[in-house]
Amino acid sequence: MDPKAEELLGRPLIGNLGYYGLDGYPRVTPVWYALVGGEIHVPSQPDLYKCRALRADGRATLTVSTPEVPYKVASAIGHATVERFDENARIALVSRLARHFLGPEAGQRYLQGWMKGGHPGPGDLIRLAPDRVRYTDV
Amino acid sequence: MDPKAEELLGRPLIGNLGYYGLDGYPRVTPVWYALVGGEIHVPSQPDLYKCRALRADGRATLTVSTPEVPYKVASAIGHATVERFDENARIALVSRLARHFLGPEAGQRYLQGWMKGGHPGPGDLIRLAPDRVRYTDV
Repeated sequence: MDPKAEELLGRPLIGNLGYYGLDGYPRVTPVWYALVGGEIHVPSQPDLYKCRALRADGRATLTVSTPEVPYKVASAIGHATVERFDENARIALVSRLARHFLGPEAGQRYLQGWMKGGHPGPGDLIRLAPDRVRYTDV
Repeated sequence: MDPKAEELLGRPLIGNLGYYGLDGYPRVTPVWYALVGGEIHVPSQPDLYKCRALRADGRATLTVSTPEVPYKVASAIGHATVERFDENARIALVSRLARHFLGPEAGQRYLQGWMKGGHPGPGDLIRLAPDRVRYTDV
C-alpha cells in the first residue's frame, strides 16, 4: 500500500463506506474502521442495513479525507464480506476503535454505555479486502 | 426536506459523493457542494472521472456527517445529471463555495489561485435531485 495512503488510513478520521443499497442506489455510511493486515475491518451491530446490503453485493469502497486544505484523500476499493463477530472479538475491536476515534477519556465513557454491563452480544464484522488503494492530494 | 437534514447539509462539512465507477465498483469522492432549491450542486473541472461515471450511471448519494460525537448524518439519494457549466456561472458558484467551506480569508486566497487570472474556463455541474433524504443521529 502507498505509504501516504496507509498513513492517512491510520489517522482517527471517520471512514465513508460506499456500497450498493438493496434498491440499487449507492449508499455512503460513515464508519469507524481499523486497518488490519491490509484489510479494512468495520464492526457493526448485527444485520444493520449496510451488512444486509454488503451480503447481497460485496463491492465496496472506503474513503477517508482530511477536513481541511490541502485535502488528502485515500480510497480503498474491493470486495467486502460480512461475518458473525463473536462477543469477545467484538469487544476488543470496538474498545480499540473507541479510544482511537474518540481519545482515551471520551472513548472510555463511550465504552461504558456500549458495553451494556459487560455483554454487548455478538455483532457483524465487515471485512473489505482492497484490490486498489488510491491516494490524492488536492 | 427534514429540517435537521437541511440544517446539516447547510453546514460547511465536506460532502461525500457516492456513485458507481466505470468498473461497476462504488466510489466515494469528497466534494464541495451547494444546496440549491432542494438539489445538490457540485461544480467540477470538466470531464473528471466522477463526471464521466455519473454520465454513464446517474444513481448517486451525497452524505455529510459531523466529525465528532454525537455523529449526525444526512444522506441525499437520487439521480444526478452532469451538464456543461459556463465560466461565469462556474465562477459564481465556486466563489460562494470557497468562502463557505474555507471561510472568507482562506476562501479568497484559494480563489486567487483558482481563477487563473480571471479565466478558469467552463466546467461541469453535477446536479443531484434527491428522491429521499435520510437523517440519523448516532
